[in-house]
Amino acid sequence: MRIISREDIDSHYSMEECIDSVKDAFALFSKGKVQVPLRTQIKNGEGSGTYLCMPAYCQEYNASCVKLLNMFPGNVQQGLPAIHAQVFVMDAKSGVINGMIDGNYLTQLRTGAASGAAFKLLAKKKCEIGALIGTGAQAAAQLEAMLIAKKLKEVRIAGLDFKRTQAFVADMQQKMQHFPTKILAVSDANTAVEQADLIVTVTSSQNPVFDGKRVKKGATISAVGSYQPHMQEIPAEVLTRASKIYFDSQEAVLSESGDILVPLSLGIIKEEQFTGEIGQVINGELVSRENAEEIILFKTVGIAAQDLIVAQAIFDKVTN
Amino acid sequence: MRIISREDIDSHYSMEECIDSVKDAFALFSKGKVQVPLRTQIKNGEGSGTYLCMPAYCQEYNASCVKLLNMFPGNVQQGLPAIHAQVFVMDAKSGVINGMIDGNYLTQLRTGAASGAAFKLLAKKKCEIGALIGTGAQAAAQLEAMLIAKKLKEVRIAGLDFKRTQAFVADMQQKMQHFPTKILAVSDANTAVEQADLIVTVTSSQNPVFDGKRVKKGATISAVGSYQPHMQEIPAEVLTRASKIYFDSQEAVLSESGDILVPLSLGIIKEEQFTGEIGQVINGELVSRENAEEIILFKTVGIAAQDLIVAQAIFDKVTN
Repeated sequence: MRIISREDIDSHYSMEECIDSVKDAFALFSKGKVQVPLRTQIKNGEGSGTYLCMPAYCQEYNASCVKLLNMFPGNVQQGLPAIHAQVFVMDAKSGVINGMIDGNYLTQLRTGAASGAAFKLLAKKKCEIGALIGTGAQAAAQLEAMLIAKKLKEVRIAGLDFKRTQAFVADMQQKMQHFPTKILAVSDANTAVEQADLIVTVTSSQNPVFDGKRVKKGATISAVGSYQPHMQEIPAEVLTRASKIYFDSQEAVLSESGDILVPLSLGIIKEEQFTGEIGQVINGELVSRENAEEIILFKTVGIAAQDLIVAQAIFDKVTN
Repeated sequence: MRIISREDIDSHYSMEECIDSVKDAFALFSKGKVQVPLRTQIKNGEGSGTYLCMPAYCQEYNASCVKLLNMFPGNVQQGLPAIHAQVFVMDAKSGVINGMIDGNYLTQLRTGAASGAAFKLLAKKKCEIGALIGTGAQAAAQLEAMLIAKKLKEVRIAGLDFKRTQAFVADMQQKMQHFPTKILAVSDANTAVEQADLIVTVTSSQNPVFDGKRVKKGATISAVGSYQPHMQEIPAEVLTRASKIYFDSQEAVLSESGDILVPLSLGIIKEEQFTGEIGQVINGELVSRENAEEIILFKTVGIAAQDLIVAQAIFDKVTN
């Protein structure tokens, strides 16, 4: 059993590679090539924590894994992380449990890489300005994926608390200094998105975090934060203005994300307006962006196929 | 993350303690205090392997675990074990994944301990002769549990192949030499069971492995091997002769074990003849043995509650 830490991943596997893995994952998923049984869920006694158990298997990729992810929001009061996750890599030929990968970090990487893949596949050729809304645990990987997907002049970052945003930006200026991109803290999300070609939202907001009118033509938006029906960070106006709306998994998004469910329930959009899955774009079954004026929305809730393919790729890189 | 090997278990946790843990597990299970979601199952591409993922949680015991168990019978041709299992222990308050325990060994121990618990609870006071049918991976723990449950003069062991039985017995004579019990290889199962007060069957047989008439009055039988509807090692006559029939989980046995399902489907026995769960005996809801003449059958298929309580107990012993 090989235990693979965050540091092991960093020294063997890049965000660039992770974006490729996630593209493979989306393509295999949309072809129906990834087996994902319904995940099991146990609430602990007080109802304050949730244990999730998520197996997945793909014969084509010779990959099998189980992700354990435990969400205990109350931990924060004791100074502990709210989420504890591990991904177990199993040999697809023999069933041997071969590796255990830091699941918190893997989740950050594959979630960032989903935005990176979306920007590579759906954004217009020439992008200059990026916007990142949210400065939490997922934000750094989102920023890195954006910087890899497109050579940007500037990324404008906004969060709930400006001091925290400034601290995050200072940290990112350090960590992303190998990119030729100016990284700036701005005071509010509207300012961040106004001129942006690429937008990532990665917040836990229950209300839209910017004004939909501010999004400029030609923008590509990756909406990451909302994974429950009561969470909504994208204004409905973005959905009506968007000429194409893609998902990682249409079924998962339509059962989980308030970004889509709220406007649907209000009749602001209809299912017919959804373009389909990004995997179908990769598989040549759906068209991508058709001109530089379209506003395109990609909504991702994260799927087990990403964990599976990324885990196997990390395991192969670290152990070979 | 503490990795707990077979050796760690052996030096910190005894079969005696395991029998106590399994009694706790059965009691909690029959009280409905163990949450066990339906296990997930994935067949690999060629259908030659199965991945099982089994979470469980018990607030009363402050325990949460996931057992991964992969069954790849084809491995044997490559000289690899057919079963690969690990049990992950998670903190019930914080969700931290704290420990990983050798799941193959844990399974052997908790399966042996089920028989040990049954003999302690259901056997007549004075037992002299034991019989063990089966010499596979589970057999050693079954023997040890039997020796702990009752002070026996002699245990007679039979298997499919007499040379293999002799080799197993030689090994057991060595490993169980701290018990004052003679351990003998016998040529066939009928000879083994004939005078036995305690009988364990732990084979993968699809046909009854001994003649039901040979079982003497007052015997207690723990039937371990049959965990699928086409597997049957106990002759139907034992069921008709038994005055009491107990299960680990009545629901699990009635959906999995040919020992019970085959006679049921043939009309040889009726559900009304089943006494109930051994946990109900521990909880004082059901009577145990009432005299020294009764033949009593205990059928166990193994339940997640055993893995959970034993895993937590091992983790506590090893880390404290």
